[in-house]
Amino acid sequence: MIKLTALALLSLSLFAADNWPGNWKAQGIIYLDHSPNAAMHPVPVRAVKLGDGFWQPRRRVNVERSIPTMLELLEAHGIVDNFRRLSNKKDAPRTGPLYTDSDLYKWMEAVAFVLQEGDSPKLRATLDALIADVAAAQEPSGYLNTNYTGDKVALRFTEMYRSHELYCLGHLLQAGIAYYRATGNRKLLDIGIRFVDYLVADFGPTKRPLLTGHPELEMALVELYRTTGNRAYLNLAGYLLSGVESERLHLKPSQVSYMFSGVPFTSRTTFEGHAVRAMYASSGATDYFLETGDPLYRKTLDTLWSDLTNRKMYITGGVGSRSDGEAFGDPYELPNSQAYTESCAAIGNMLWNFRMLAASGESRFADVMERALYNGINSGMSLDGTLYCYRNPLASDGEKIRNQWYDTTCCPPNLERVIASLPGYFYATSKEGLYVNFYHDSVLDWQGLKVTQKTNYPWSGDVEFTVMPESAREFTLFLRIPAWSRNSSVLLNGTAIPAQPGQYLALRRTWNPGDKFILRLDMTPRLIAANPRISEDNGKAAVQRGPLVYCLEQPDQSAKIPDLSLNPRTDFASEFRGDLFGGVVILKHAGAAYRQPLDQEPLYQTLDQANRRKTNPVSLTFIPYYAWANRLPSPMEVWVPLTEP
Amino acid sequence: MIKLTALALLSLSLFAADNWPGNWKAQGIIYLDHSPNAAMHPVPVRAVKLGDGFWQPRRRVNVERSIPTMLELLEAHGIVDNFRRLSNKKDAPRTGPLYTDSDLYKWMEAVAFVLQEGDSPKLRATLDALIADVAAAQEPSGYLNTNYTGDKVALRFTEMYRSHELYCLGHLLQAGIAYYRATGNRKLLDIGIRFVDYLVADFGPTKRPLLTGHPELEMALVELYRTTGNRAYLNLAGYLLSGVESERLHLKPSQVSYMFSGVPFTSRTTFEGHAVRAMYASSGATDYFLETGDPLYRKTLDTLWSDLTNRKMYITGGVGSRSDGEAFGDPYELPNSQAYTESCAAIGNMLWNFRMLAASGESRFADVMERALYNGINSGMSLDGTLYCYRNPLASDGEKIRNQWYDTTCCPPNLERVIASLPGYFYATSKEGLYVNFYHDSVLDWQGLKVTQKTNYPWSGDVEFTVMPESAREFTLFLRIPAWSRNSSVLLNGTAIPAQPGQYLALRRTWNPGDKFILRLDMTPRLIAANPRISEDNGKAAVQRGPLVYCLEQPDQSAKIPDLSLNPRTDFASEFRGDLFGGVVILKHAGAAYRQPLDQEPLYQTLDQANRRKTNPVSLTFIPYYAWANRLPSPMEVWVPLTEP
Repeated sequence: MIKLTALALLSLSLFAADNWPGNWKAQGIIYLDHSPNAAMHPVPVRAVKLGDGFWQPRRRVNVERSIPTMLELLEAHGIVDNFRRLSNKKDAPRTGPLYTDSDLYKWMEAVAFVLQEGDSPKLRATLDALIADVAAAQEPSGYLNTNYTGDKVALRFTEMYRSHELYCLGHLLQAGIAYYRATGNRKLLDIGIRFVDYLVADFGPTKRPLLTGHPELEMALVELYRTTGNRAYLNLAGYLLSGVESERLHLKPSQVSYMFSGVPFTSRTTFEGHAVRAMYASSGATDYFLETGDPLYRKTLDTLWSDLTNRKMYITGGVGSRSDGEAFGDPYELPNSQAYTESCAAIGNMLWNFRMLAASGESRFADVMERALYNGINSGMSLDGTLYCYRNPLASDGEKIRNQWYDTTCCPPNLERVIASLPGYFYATSKEGLYVNFYHDSVLDWQGLKVTQKTNYPWSGDVEFTVMPESAREFTLFLRIPAWSRNSSVLLNGTAIPAQPGQYLALRRTWNPGDKFILRLDMTPRLIAANPRISEDNGKAAVQRGPLVYCLEQPDQSAKIPDLSLNPRTDFASEFRGDLFGGVVILKHAGAAYRQPLDQEPLYQTLDQANRRKTNPVSLTFIPYYAWANRLPSPMEVWVPLTEP
Repeated sequence: MIKLTALALLSLSLFAADNWPGNWKAQGIIYLDHSPNAAMHPVPVRAVKLGDGFWQPRRRVNVERSIPTMLELLEAHGIVDNFRRLSNKKDAPRTGPLYTDSDLYKWMEAVAFVLQEGDSPKLRATLDALIADVAAAQEPSGYLNTNYTGDKVALRFTEMYRSHELYCLGHLLQAGIAYYRATGNRKLLDIGIRFVDYLVADFGPTKRPLLTGHPELEMALVELYRTTGNRAYLNLAGYLLSGVESERLHLKPSQVSYMFSGVPFTSRTTFEGHAVRAMYASSGATDYFLETGDPLYRKTLDTLWSDLTNRKMYITGGVGSRSDGEAFGDPYELPNSQAYTESCAAIGNMLWNFRMLAASGESRFADVMERALYNGINSGMSLDGTLYCYRNPLASDGEKIRNQWYDTTCCPPNLERVIASLPGYFYATSKEGLYVNFYHDSVLDWQGLKVTQKTNYPWSGDVEFTVMPESAREFTLFLRIPAWSRNSSVLLNGTAIPAQPGQYLALRRTWNPGDKFILRLDMTPRLIAANPRISEDNGKAAVQRGPLVYCLEQPDQSAKIPDLSLNPRTDFASEFRGDLFGGVVILKHAGAAYRQPLDQEPLYQTLDQANRRKTNPVSLTFIPYYAWANRLPSPMEVWVPLTEP
């Protein structure tokens, strides 16, 4: 338990910043205590302990299996040796794609988040050894990238549209900051700072031009500013986002579209190009807005958010439809089996909405975070923690989708860092009180306030809260009522307070130690229709229960998936199955199957003929989407045709 | 009028071959008079004169605008100079993609087909001059390819997976054969033969390995065999189709899939990879079957045809779903706005089915030809003959789809040669009599038999036939009854003979000069449903009238296309509009439009909420699909949502 400013809590507000740059132990995933445009301030990872429940088995597997095996794989593929060869510790050719330094950095950040939750001398020693390898690879100038060495030195900063030099630096900084916030140890952080200082000295509008061909450094630089208080880093982020160098760098329009970089961020009106780049750029721009309050940024971010959530986001929170260019498609171009929906893009969506939430205090951003986290991100890692999805399609013919390793292995360590950092997303403070963004069996212990959630969420919609300030105190508890929860209420002192979906319910009162209340969210399974402009989802529905999107997977069905349909007039029966996927609620539904399999029917026939097709009643079993492909590869679909009336 | 073997017609059969290789004037698009496995023998292009009607305006524009402007463009882009530089007539660098020789050859073939229909001294002179340029570029060895010259000589036959050397030769041969069949002039043909003889001498299973990385040469070689009687050419085609060289050429599985070449053709069971390659390979394999009768080929071709028509073909006859690799997708992967559906692939589909029709005499193959010709091929050229589609999608947001020129300009001259050769597809003979494959106002005049069609097909379904043998004679007239014509009949001597759709109606009798009958095809507009496994077409219908697929294009509608739906319970009113697209039948339909445009609706909502959506009645106007994008670029769709009941 950290108890830094209990007095401040009792005297002034729940949000009580100490001096900037402040105590590393008080800093969360992003550190907004001094950000003038933050509506809320996330608590540090270490302030929240998740109890047994939905996420803890995955988080345990992450620490025990995913993180150790990923380091083994990074070693086996020579990714770490890429650093060691530069200090002559290894004699091997540089290996892997040009951006693979970032994969190690992301892995290091994941470990740092584990250490933020609780110390582990062994993990710390492993990380310290790796940090020494990275440090030894850095040049005296501060430059650090294992690809642009040897005969490639001359190419440095000459092909930034593809080089990922700044992308790797971004991940280095994020790892350094996370390790600093875990331990107070600045060694990795200072490696990053040396490289940034080199950039600050030599690059800029009146010096050499700079471009984040793969945006990522922007958000890292703003976080570095928050960590150090050095405004030069914020200004460098602003310069990168200003996109003023397209002329000096001779960028082509197609590059600018693809990279989501190279023109002023504030000139963007739609999402296009590479989805991860676009999400990271938007995250960085939101960070920049949080510090500067620039209204043009706010306007652009709102426009882009509307474009994403009204036209280009999957029901799973996945984004990026096209494999060609790993890119956004046209509006409403959201194919299911062809969906690209890279794990990293769904993570980027969550990272961005986390920042939008912090900037606004509006529940709709947390809704998108939850949608992505429980579905399109959650599907990215196998339940045993050793296999990863790069793509997360919404339908499948049964091709193998999970692999231990990818040559471009960006997704696996990215998933690991998200899962390791998870407690840091649940609570945030403001002058008014405490925001509860997500629900899980857990204990918050922060600045003299303890809040306990007892719940089986998301299997159950009931959350029993116990509020334990050190002594009675008036403040507001902001409870996020998800947009999907149509009938929600809070039971407090024997009265039921109704709660509007899609908003934070503000419970302002004097809270006494031991006060209890129950939040009731509506876990009735519901049928979701897509906008008919999404061609592939026309005449179909998806099933959601709570935050979870469900799917049909072949092993649970008695007929072939393409022949199945659901009946909008019959209900879904929820059933907890402890034996399946470590325990999940499945849904049973009285649907139908075509008597003659569709693959024995003509490709085209008259509508009259088609309407004469006969069905048999069958029981359908829906499982949570995130759990698919944890048995043998087999067909799956999220959007299920509606039985014709 | 050509009257070669009228005596044979009168004494033995309508099919009467002269001595092989035979008279060039009697040879059609493919020349099957000596093919042991041909069920029918197409008449030569010159035997059929199309009257005014559907195709003639397009064919006139083809000769007057498309062909001349395409030569200007080929000249302007240096494609002809690529040849002239090799004989030092021009001093310019070689230009264009490595396969661009074929674009000139295809253009030459188009001109040759024009000359088959009727002589034109001016066109002949133009072609002769170009032939001289091509001849001067040929090496003494016979080798001819403008790309593999100078410092690229060493690369000849070393990168056949991409080189297109044999692909270009295939088009050279086809142009040479067509010109020979137009004029009896062998000059271009002999250029091709010299190159082939060079291959025959040096390549083969016991010599150097050969591969058509882009199949095309196969069908050209079989046609060369048919033209010359030299079996070595047939054998070379058999060797290329045998795909025995994958080991010697170190081909990767991905290459073999993409190229549809490199493994035994008879080992194929599904369509995959590059669609044009696959269609051309299948065409060549059918040609090979027609000569050899190899049952393994027949079995493979049947399997592939079923795969195509039951799982991978658009309603327009277009094939090849994916832009990535210009490739076939998975079964039922037939997206609309993302459809790749290259014009060349639809042409390949027609070329292949023409050969399957000839090998079987089965109407279903002509049905596919008609589907492709009237829709997915027909859409490829603008009505003014100067703009071409490379892609022929089935839905569009209004992006520009027609262009005058493409760097890879394979489609424009391919479309020109198809339109120029069109009369050659209408009739074929057999021992039993005469096959009528397609309908159009026209006169057949072949071997002492005249057949006149008076019709406004496809706007009308009535075709008045006049049969004029030189004297009374018993034979069968095989009338193709399209599968789409549900109520068809022939009115002959006052009696109505019912006709089954999807078959040839065999009218065997003694035909007297001047005999008349009327064929009545069912032109009732009909709603077509796709197999629900085609995700994007679920809950939608397409409208067909006769062979024509219809579409909604924005200029004709009173509300935005994505907001429109059609009502399966109301009819379509056909209306001839002389002022539109040079005269077309449009269809009027009482449909509906959403009151609130869909782009102002949420991306996802509960099905209950979605079902409360309100519509207004609106009149929809459907135009033939082929005519779309002949006004300002604007949205279009073939598959229209059905109004919810």
